[in-house]
Amino acid sequence: MKKLSHIDTAGKARMVDVSRKAVTKRTAVARGAITMKRTTLKLVRDNTVEKGDVLGSARIAGILAAKNTPRLIPLCHPLNISSVYIDFKVDPTKNRIIIESRVTITGQTGVEMEALTAVSVAALTIYDMCKSVDKEMVISDIMLVEKKGGRSGTFKRSRS
Amino acid sequence: MKKLSHIDTAGKARMVDVSRKAVTKRTAVARGAITMKRTTLKLVRDNTVEKGDVLGSARIAGILAAKNTPRLIPLCHPLNISSVYIDFKVDPTKNRIIIESRVTITGQTGVEMEALTAVSVAALTIYDMCKSVDKEMVISDIMLVEKKGGRSGTFKRSRS
Amino acid sequence: MKKLSHIDTAGKARMVDVSRKAVTKRTAVARGAITMKRTTLKLVRDNTVEKGDVLGSARIAGILAAKNTPRLIPLCHPLNISSVYIDFKVDPTKNRIIIESRVTITGQTGVEMEALTAVSVAALTIYDMCKSVDKEMVISDIMLVEKKGGRSGTFKRSRS
Amino acid sequence: MKKLSHIDTAGKARMVDVSRKAVTKRTAVARGAITMKRTTLKLVRDNTVEKGDVLGSARIAGILAAKNTPRLIPLCHPLNISSVYIDFKVDPTKNRIIIESRVTITGQTGVEMEALTAVSVAALTIYDMCKSVDKEMVISDIMLVEKKGGRSGTFKRSRS
Amino acid sequence: MKKLSHIDTAGKARMVDVSRKAVTKRTAVARGAITMKRTTLKLVRDNTVEKGDVLGSARIAGILAAKNTPRLIPLCHPLNISSVYIDFKVDPTKNRIIIESRVTITGQTGVEMEALTAVSVAALTIYDMCKSVDKEMVISDIMLVEKKGGRSGTFKRSRS
Amino acid sequence: MKKLSHIDTAGKARMVDVSRKAVTKRTAVARGAITMKRTTLKLVRDNTVEKGDVLGSARIAGILAAKNTPRLIPLCHPLNISSVYIDFKVDPTKNRIIIESRVTITGQTGVEMEALTAVSVAALTIYDMCKSVDKEMVISDIMLVEKKGGRSGTFKRSRS
Repeated sequence: MKKLSHIDTAGKARMVDVSRKAVTKRTAVARGAITMKRTTLKLVRDNTVEKGDVLGSARIAGILAAKNTPRLIPLCHPLNISSVYIDFKVDPTKNRIIIESRVTITGQTGVEMEALTAVSVAALTIYDMCKSVDKEMVISDIMLVEKKGGRSGTFKRSRS
Repeated sequence: MKKLSHIDTAGKARMVDVSRKAVTKRTAVARGAITMKRTTLKLVRDNTVEKGDVLGSARIAGILAAKNTPRLIPLCHPLNISSVYIDFKVDPTKNRIIIESRVTITGQTGVEMEALTAVSVAALTIYDMCKSVDKEMVISDIMLVEKKGGRSGTFKRSRS
Repeated sequence: MKKLSHIDTAGKARMVDVSRKAVTKRTAVARGAITMKRTTLKLVRDNTVEKGDVLGSARIAGILAAKNTPRLIPLCHPLNISSVYIDFKVDPTKNRIIIESRVTITGQTGVEMEALTAVSVAALTIYDMCKSVDKEMVISDIMLVEKKGGRSGTFKRSRS
Repeated sequence: MKKLSHIDTAGKARMVDVSRKAVTKRTAVARGAITMKRTTLKLVRDNTVEKGDVLGSARIAGILAAKNTPRLIPLCHPLNISSVYIDFKVDPTKNRIIIESRVTITGQTGVEMEALTAVSVAALTIYDMCKSVDKEMVISDIMLVEKKGGRSGTFKRSRS
Repeated sequence: MKKLSHIDTAGKARMVDVSRKAVTKRTAVARGAITMKRTTLKLVRDNTVEKGDVLGSARIAGILAAKNTPRLIPLCHPLNISSVYIDFKVDPTKNRIIIESRVTITGQTGVEMEALTAVSVAALTIYDMCKSVDKEMVISDIMLVEKKGGRSGTFKRSRS
Repeated sequence: MKKLSHIDTAGKARMVDVSRKAVTKRTAVARGAITMKRTTLKLVRDNTVEKGDVLGSARIAGILAAKNTPRLIPLCHPLNISSVYIDFKVDPTKNRIIIESRVTITGQTGVEMEALTAVSVAALTIYDMCKSVDKEMVISDIMLVEKKGGRSGTFKRSRS
């Protein structure tokens, strides 16, 4: 088991000090999916969902959520992220929409949480806009796909 | 395919009018899970994660997120929710933590999104607090389990 | 000059008490415009602005802003608005986009500020998305067009 | 027509990457006006508006709004602005109040949106505080007056 | 010792259910003080503090904070408060400013936290605006003075 | 009396320019206390307060509040703080809980307000969670204990 360096304060939440970490370019890519009925997916693709343009709205919600991460996740550092991209792929074989986000920063700490939060809130927005016709949608497979920059080097998920 | 009543505005996002819906007691229950390494799960259970008390922090983050839902999800109505409960079950056979939320309101629209957002942000908080020892955690199976009150009556997910 | 009823506290900002006002259905319609170069307007209409779908993003930003009004305007009451609609009309004769919002509530106070804030933030979002090609855009003619419900009855702007 | 460099993603909103832009001192000056009845303007000047000190409250609201810009405008970068100044000039010949903001930063991207948002929210606050006596106020002429620093050099509006 | 009714969930934070409480008019009055050097108090009274009008700014900050209470205090219910008043009294004999807030609502739960939060943030704003000349200010005696409405009836602090 | 350098703008709130201040490591330590009935303090220590884990929740609320400081205190600069720690000491001789926060940053301006805000909101959270059994709690002695880094050098409060 990996050892933890500062066990003495365990049990007490704290926002760890990042002031000695190097300022470097950092990137995080996250992914997730929302699975729905075939008929719901068709409404999204045809852009005929009652509440309006689903993927365009989810993209804006995800970008705003990336910026809101330090207000949502208690121990995240406030960060000035450099960019956020969110993309959607419709996967008709599994009746789902795959959501991918890419967040970059030049700073002292990584942006994994920003990328994961962007994917989560984009998925929730899709759920909200389609829920009048489909209450059984499932959000899943939210994971970190890639992380670059910083002390711990490059992480690439073996399988996703 | 279920027919949509107000197709004429399709393609334009809008926050639909709820002013004619009845004021009733409404409840929503949502669930989700975060899967992690066995050793990570042990750290959470032993409360020895470096960043502090994981489940207690995730519970507070989830409750605050339920209240933040209309600021995160563009077309959600601002609501005065009556209560939020969040519970965690450690499932050691699958190396995961199951998160369940229950939100209630006496109002004109349901609180599914509040319950789903609470689960999502609680899961993200667990991810954040454990990510220094485990980058491969996966958040999944976020779904609506039950919904009571309002015009559409009671919904219970057949299998979850 | 119209007399003010509670002059005694003049000079000290306060959020006035609405608790004795009737709960009624209230509607506010606001309007505004953003004028730009002909070539910029063409980019918006062709949906080829570098930052993406301008009007779709501005609509979402305006809806979220309507909900944020009590956090932006110091003396506005927190409200649970029932609906927000935002529409855009391209006016090629004057090289401008007209923005119109309609906000409804069943409550004790009106939603003029929500409607005006929605228009303002939608206009600012259009500015932001087009500013790399046009720094001389002007936002103007933000006004209340109509107001219904409540003690003061119906207001309709004579000319707009 | 000015060419856009990254047309390939047109139609999909995105927060563009600023990580390669130089860190420089940047300034933006914005301006706008709110026109009202002569009697309303007198109430503001005499500081006898029922809701309290109009210009002092509008100044605070505008400063807070400048800091809130990245949460209001979807594709704006989160920024640590260095200063915000807001000034008002009463223009009795046209029965209006002119609002001017100046925002500075040492950073990788400009602060035009912060300056424009400060002016807009200050104007909306004036509207809110005076609306019980004047529903026909109009907010207009919100524009960027000057911009300094960064790759695109100094911009000065020819006429304002 | 007063008995607690729902001890079974002790140790797990939760937002308690208020949906069965009566909708009544409720009022809360809170008070606090900030003590400073005699010379600092003089600057505030003369309105010559470098950062500007101290009490006017603190009043606006306190009102906004009352509305922000459910986003700051994890287990507070989101509420549509009906009014907020904040007053200041300069107490030269003790070199301090006394801050008093009064918050009202017609709702299912009280507004003590809104009143206490308004006082606290008003005091912090005074601290911020004066701290360049006085780092030894002390905020104290923040307390609930009076509470009316609701099941528990009227509370009046015996001595304050 | 200490002289103020920019008296000319007195009476008008403004967010002062920090762009010429040096980027240095800065630390602020703040402290405060909440006094309660002996029986209330026992409930907190035994972790049997109805609303749940008091100190754990207050710690999370305080950390989030430190990050929210520029949205609460009008003239505070937005900052990317490097760390926040919050600790509680139960002082049974005076029936009170002492709250201490430590905030650090590498930046152009100090973090006193972040440290003081963290203490204040942690105290308010304790109040909220215990108020059903004790309405007479008092929050007091909120003060800056220590400040390091920046032009004005080290400040240590002589007595606290």
